[in-house]
Amino acid sequence: MKYDCSFLEDLDLADDQLSFTETRRETHAADWGAEQQGRAVVPDAVVWPESTADVSAVLSAATDRDVPVTPYAAGTGLEGNAVPAHGGVSLDLTRMDAVVDYRPEDFQIDVGPGIIGDDVDEHVARDGLFFPPLPSSGDISTIGGMIATDASGMQTVKYGEVADWVLGLEAVLADGTVIETGTRAAKTSSGYNLTDLLVGSEGTLAVVTEATLELAGRPEQIRGGRAVFESVEDATGAIAEAIRTEVDVARIELLDALSARMTNAYLDTGLPDAPTVFLEFHANHGIDEEIALCRTIFEENGAERVETSADPSEMADLWEARREIAFAVDSYDPDLVPFHPGDVTVPISAYPEIVRETKRISEAHDVLTPCYGHAGDGNLHYSPLVDYDDPDSVERGKIVYRAVVERALEMGGTVTGEHGIGEGKREYLEVEHGDGAVDAMRAVKRAFDPTDTLNPGKIFPETLEGERVRDGGVVGEADRGGGR
Amino acid sequence: MKYDCSFLEDLDLADDQLSFTETRRETHAADWGAEQQGRAVVPDAVVWPESTADVSAVLSAATDRDVPVTPYAAGTGLEGNAVPAHGGVSLDLTRMDAVVDYRPEDFQIDVGPGIIGDDVDEHVARDGLFFPPLPSSGDISTIGGMIATDASGMQTVKYGEVADWVLGLEAVLADGTVIETGTRAAKTSSGYNLTDLLVGSEGTLAVVTEATLELAGRPEQIRGGRAVFESVEDATGAIAEAIRTEVDVARIELLDALSARMTNAYLDTGLPDAPTVFLEFHANHGIDEEIALCRTIFEENGAERVETSADPSEMADLWEARREIAFAVDSYDPDLVPFHPGDVTVPISAYPEIVRETKRISEAHDVLTPCYGHAGDGNLHYSPLVDYDDPDSVERGKIVYRAVVERALEMGGTVTGEHGIGEGKREYLEVEHGDGAVDAMRAVKRAFDPTDTLNPGKIFPETLEGERVRDGGVVGEADRGGGR
Repeated sequence: MKYDCSFLEDLDLADDQLSFTETRRETHAADWGAEQQGRAVVPDAVVWPESTADVSAVLSAATDRDVPVTPYAAGTGLEGNAVPAHGGVSLDLTRMDAVVDYRPEDFQIDVGPGIIGDDVDEHVARDGLFFPPLPSSGDISTIGGMIATDASGMQTVKYGEVADWVLGLEAVLADGTVIETGTRAAKTSSGYNLTDLLVGSEGTLAVVTEATLELAGRPEQIRGGRAVFESVEDATGAIAEAIRTEVDVARIELLDALSARMTNAYLDTGLPDAPTVFLEFHANHGIDEEIALCRTIFEENGAERVETSADPSEMADLWEARREIAFAVDSYDPDLVPFHPGDVTVPISAYPEIVRETKRISEAHDVLTPCYGHAGDGNLHYSPLVDYDDPDSVERGKIVYRAVVERALEMGGTVTGEHGIGEGKREYLEVEHGDGAVDAMRAVKRAFDPTDTLNPGKIFPETLEGERVRDGGVVGEADRGGGR
Repeated sequence: MKYDCSFLEDLDLADDQLSFTETRRETHAADWGAEQQGRAVVPDAVVWPESTADVSAVLSAATDRDVPVTPYAAGTGLEGNAVPAHGGVSLDLTRMDAVVDYRPEDFQIDVGPGIIGDDVDEHVARDGLFFPPLPSSGDISTIGGMIATDASGMQTVKYGEVADWVLGLEAVLADGTVIETGTRAAKTSSGYNLTDLLVGSEGTLAVVTEATLELAGRPEQIRGGRAVFESVEDATGAIAEAIRTEVDVARIELLDALSARMTNAYLDTGLPDAPTVFLEFHANHGIDEEIALCRTIFEENGAERVETSADPSEMADLWEARREIAFAVDSYDPDLVPFHPGDVTVPISAYPEIVRETKRISEAHDVLTPCYGHAGDGNLHYSPLVDYDDPDSVERGKIVYRAVVERALEMGGTVTGEHGIGEGKREYLEVEHGDGAVDAMRAVKRAFDPTDTLNPGKIFPETLEGERVRDGGVVGEADRGGGR
């Protein structure tokens, strides 16, 4: 045990809200990303708050005792965002999953952080509404987690990211203070924008206990599509031109030839092992004109086959390969595992170049790197595959991974479009933002959480060595799980 | 002289970049709002920086000497946002008005803070692009000022506010440190969102020296429209239903009957003195269907006459009354002046109620209060007119002004949709956000600007008494100009 968490027994929590058992603690030791990389840190206790008051009581008491608290929910993060890097308390928010209020007349819903993304959609579907920025994991990820990383997904190209759909938050600071941010009005210029500061702060500034989300009306027309290209240069050129021409597309996703080969092997689709672009169109008017415009641009850029459909089951078929890509990559070769989940995002004009560079660098180092992602946003997911039993393979995967990040930053891009910094990308924070901006972020962290109670060991690089750092010096220690 | 600013002469500034003359200082003593209310505070010096390095040098030296610095540009703020409330240096950014870089292929432009809004539009028009969230004062206001208040305007109902169109900033902190925030990528989850924290912070956290703005493609079809209603209840009901039905409208503006009367008197239009709604539609497809849907909703809600046009000069005619309302109000009666420019914003479902309440409260206190504004956002501009020579009239105007703010907050709204808190709305910051959130804002202020160098006396209520407040205690003093 790293921290004595027996103080939790003195709080007003029911028996089933608190656990010190190894089984329960171990299920809160990693997220998807940490698991894949064989890293895990077992918390000293798990608490399941059921109210804002519960969260406040835990935080206040933990801060008084210098015990770290790391928010946790579905555990679907890819950068170790919810790993309790320094031990202490894992604060599992999955029970705070209520729809607190729903105002369809204002396109607004107030929800607890533990609600699953798709459940929000389901709740509002009867009124023809939906929550547009859900990530691909919307069927299992929670709204709280999406807010923590400012998540986004396939529809971000048309509708924006999670931050664009959060009007306000209730959140608890490290000292237990409950604050409310934002407004129910469509816009505000009143004081500092704490809402957008907390969105994407990965649980390091406050714990979100309720969110007011904005909703959109479902489009009257939806069409799916798929286009196969001879070369990835053609595919990315077509995508960049479609975006530059402002084709009104709701989803535009890329699989490179290697990814296509992996999904074809996995699904036995019979499709060519060729770069493939997946499309979805949403509109109330003129959808056929938009599809025709897109088709023209694609064909002028070398598309060999452009298929579209308005039939839901045909659309699902067209999209099957894109849906299954993550599983296809995982199952391609049992000896090969992604070194790290790449999530760079570049200006759309640089998208062809970052994809080309990723392939060039991978070939130069003899690494298989499937490339796919939310191409319309300039978001590239790339996974250098390595054999963890072969140090040379790991080293080469690392070189590829890092070289692509560096190239993306040179192009004016970002190291993470949607996964967050978490543990995994801390070394790049200063590279991307420079010392001045990171110092300002650090000052914000100290202003909100001077004791470094909340999710220590994330975002900021100075804690890489497993130390909690704060004004007064270094506190606490942690046994980090080793690499696999 | 409140502060000795002779240190500015030791900086590397040209002769024409620095002035201590009364004339120059007096032109930097007020903005539109302060002027209207007869308030002004003359700075001790004016500096015109021409580079980021100039801004950094001034801020660093001023912070070392405990001298306040207040950013200034067009002076079109309505809440005293750019008034140097505590004296010191007025930092006039109008010379930093360059287009630094322009990337039409990525819909991006990098500009200095002093550039006029319309000049951005003009620069990018040749590529069919525009900057959508410009406020009504876009022909004279600067981008820096718009960023300072997170401004918005008539087209916000379709395109969002300024914050939605700022990708990144270069800014200088009080100690002279230059930071860069954001990214050129379309989205990012990398570190804290300092961009959206600085947008709307009214120059109290940093001075913006460059902004990367996003642009949009000009719509292929534009239509103007105007509808006259018998009652304001009908008009606001029609607006709320159009928004709820998601009519794709780019502008939807209200003038109540009193405002219509004032513009008719001012312009001699011959229009009825009746509630009037002004419309503009932007689309690439289906604009006629959207207009037809809007017309149906309006007619079902009692619209007496709905006129539309695709002809630019006819559109300008339809919109004339809306364009001139501020001048019409000002010139209506030389003895009557707005007590304070109301800028409340409520959820759209509450819009009919806030307008009804404003009229009810005004009648109860025998105050003329023209109501108009960006109705589609739930944004109401209301101006209780008072005779400053009649203390009872002023008192009644104040009662009306305050009562409407309080009702808006009860409806889940905000005290300011687009003007900012400035000096004028500080007393409402805690009422709207609660102690906890305001304390968090204060902590952010201290983290960025511990010496309270930047625009002291704004946003936070504790400085109402004309004192600079910071950790170490109270510093500085100011002779505030009295009420008129």
